[in-house]
Amino acid sequence: MEKLTVLSGGMGGAKFLQGLLHGLRSGLLPGVAPEAEVTVIANNGDDWWIHGLKVCPDLDTVMYTLGDGIDPDRGWGRRAETWSAKEELAAYGVEPTWFGLGDRDIATHLVRTQMLEAGYPLSAVTEALCRRWLAPGYGDRVRLLPMTDDRVETHVAVEDPDSPSGLRVVHFQEYWVRLRAEVAARTVAVVGLEESRPAPGVVEAITGADLVVLPPSNPVVSVGTILGVPGIREAVRETAAPVVGLSPIVGDRHVRGMAEQMLTSIGVEVSAAGVGLHYGARAAGGVLDGWLVDERDAGQVERVRAGGIACAAVPLMMTDHDATAAMAAAAIELVATQ
Amino acid sequence: MEKLTVLSGGMGGAKFLQGLLHGLRSGLLPGVAPEAEVTVIANNGDDWWIHGLKVCPDLDTVMYTLGDGIDPDRGWGRRAETWSAKEELAAYGVEPTWFGLGDRDIATHLVRTQMLEAGYPLSAVTEALCRRWLAPGYGDRVRLLPMTDDRVETHVAVEDPDSPSGLRVVHFQEYWVRLRAEVAARTVAVVGLEESRPAPGVVEAITGADLVVLPPSNPVVSVGTILGVPGIREAVRETAAPVVGLSPIVGDRHVRGMAEQMLTSIGVEVSAAGVGLHYGARAAGGVLDGWLVDERDAGQVERVRAGGIACAAVPLMMTDHDATAAMAAAAIELVATQ
Repeated sequence: MEKLTVLSGGMGGAKFLQGLLHGLRSGLLPGVAPEAEVTVIANNGDDWWIHGLKVCPDLDTVMYTLGDGIDPDRGWGRRAETWSAKEELAAYGVEPTWFGLGDRDIATHLVRTQMLEAGYPLSAVTEALCRRWLAPGYGDRVRLLPMTDDRVETHVAVEDPDSPSGLRVVHFQEYWVRLRAEVAARTVAVVGLEESRPAPGVVEAITGADLVVLPPSNPVVSVGTILGVPGIREAVRETAAPVVGLSPIVGDRHVRGMAEQMLTSIGVEVSAAGVGLHYGARAAGGVLDGWLVDERDAGQVERVRAGGIACAAVPLMMTDHDATAAMAAAAIELVATQ
Repeated sequence: MEKLTVLSGGMGGAKFLQGLLHGLRSGLLPGVAPEAEVTVIANNGDDWWIHGLKVCPDLDTVMYTLGDGIDPDRGWGRRAETWSAKEELAAYGVEPTWFGLGDRDIATHLVRTQMLEAGYPLSAVTEALCRRWLAPGYGDRVRLLPMTDDRVETHVAVEDPDSPSGLRVVHFQEYWVRLRAEVAARTVAVVGLEESRPAPGVVEAITGADLVVLPPSNPVVSVGTILGVPGIREAVRETAAPVVGLSPIVGDRHVRGMAEQMLTSIGVEVSAAGVGLHYGARAAGGVLDGWLVDERDAGQVERVRAGGIACAAVPLMMTDHDATAAMAAAAIELVATQ
C-alpha cells in the first residue's frame, strides 16, 4: 500500500494519525510501504469566526499535533501558549469570553483570515500553513486537506426550558466549549453541508487510495460531517480501496470527546457495534468493509459481522504511539485479509 | 478655564498630557478649574493596517498612557506585554517582522478592527475603547478624539540610491520603526489628508475651548498632520481661546522622536524658534499666540517675539509629572497674561 487516506476529526483523529505515522516510519504497518503517502481529509464543519478571525479547530488540532506544536496536556491549541490577548478582550468586555484564543494560536488565525480575505480558498490556506507544520517533518508525504472550501457550520439544538419551543440552537463550539456537551442535545444541524463541494483533491485522495481509514473520531460531528459533503460518501462507497474504521466507543462510553451525546441526539445506539452498523457495510449501502472494536467489546463482533462488515476485537486505547500503531496495523490486517 | 483642548501626537504628547492632568488634579495650573474638561485631538495619520488589523499608534499611546496601561520603559505598547503572536507570525514567514505587535495590544486592534468592519467610525471605536482606559480614572472629563474618521496615511520619501528616481516612498511606520528614521527623508506625503474631514466634536472642541495647547509633539507628522485636516487649522485660527505651544526642539535636537529629520525634510530650521515661527503667529496667518522654549534656548525668545508670538524660556524637560505640570502652568501663564 502506497496511499493511505484518513477521514479525521480533531483530537481523536490527530492522536490516531500520530500513531499511524509512527507505525509507518517504524515499519509496523503490514503491507504498507515506508514511503507511503498519507492524505488527511479533516472535518472543517466545526469552524467558526470569532473576533474577526477564522478558526478551524479540527484542522489546527491535526496540523499542530503532527507538527509537534500541540499542547500535549490539553490536546488542543499550542504548546507554551500565552493568553494575553484573551485577558485583554475580556477586559474590554467583549464576548465571548469562554473560547480559548491563545496568543500563538491567534497568529495562525491572522494568517488564515488574511489569506481567505485575499481570496484564497481554505485548502490553499491550509497548504500554506502546513508548509510550516508538516513539510519539515514529512515533506510532501503527509497532506492535510479540509473536507470542503465552502462554509459549513455545525449547530446543535439543545434543550432549553426557557425557550417557547423548548429548544435553543447553538454553534457547535458553544455546545462543546461553553456548555461542555453537558446539556441534552436533540439534533445536529450542519448549515451549508448539502450545498458544499469537496475541496480540490479530496475525491481523488479517496478514489485513488490503497486504503481508507475512519479513525476513532466522532461518527456524527466529525466523520459524519465529512461524509455528508456531497460526493465524499459516494467516493468512499466507490473506491477500489478497502475502507476500515476504528470504534470511538468502548463499552458504553466514548474514549474522549462527546460521541455519546451526539449519537444519542441522532438516535444511534451508543456502542461499538451500534456505530459500526450506523456506518454500515459498503455492500449494503454503507461505507465500511471492516470495523475494529475494543477487546472489551468482543461480544459485539458477531453482530457487526452479521451486518456484512469484517470485524475484530483488539485493544483500542491510544495510550502511546506504539499502541496506536498496533491499532492501525490491526485495522489494515482486518481488511487486507478479508 | 474650564475647557482645555490639546492637539497631540504619540509619546511626547502623551507624556505632556500625563503632566497636564497631574497638574489639573493637584491644582498646579493657574486659572484652571480643578473640574476642567480636557479634550485630546490625536493624530491618526500614522495609522496603518498590519496582518488585517487596524493599528492607531498615536491614539493608543495616548489611551494606554492616560489609562496607565502603557509600558513605561518603551513609551509605547502595553505594560507586561507578551510577544507570542509576533514570534509565530515570524515562524510562518509572513512580513513585516519588524513591527511590534504585542499580544495585549492585538486585543485592542481586534476590537477596533471588528468595530470598524461593523461600520462604526474610528471616533466611535475610540470612545468605546476609552470606556476601559479613560472613564475609570477620569469619567467623561478627559475625551480622546481622532483628528478624523477618514483614512489618512503618512508616507515618507527616503533616499534610495538603488531606485531610478533616487527615492523610495515608505509608510511612516516603516520609516520610523524599521528604518529608525536613520535614512534621509526628502519629503512627507500624507495620503488622503486634503480630502479628510475633522471627526465629530473636533472643531467644536477647538472653537469652544478656553485654551488650546500644542504639546511638544512632532510639528510635522503629528501636530502638522492634525492641522492639515481641512477645517482644523481654520478652527485653531478662529477660536477665541488663546493657543500656546511648547517646543519639541531643545538646542539643535529634538527631545524624543524624529522631529529633526521631519523638519529637515520640509526645510524648516531645527530650532525652538524655527518651529515656533513655522507654526507662526495667529495675527500673521499662523496658529500660535504663545510659544515656550527651553531655558537653554532663551537667546531665541526675542526672535520668536519678533514674529508676533508671546514667548518665554523655561525648563522643558518632562523628567517627572511635576516638571511637566510646571511646563503646562508656564504655558498657561504665557498666554493668560499677554
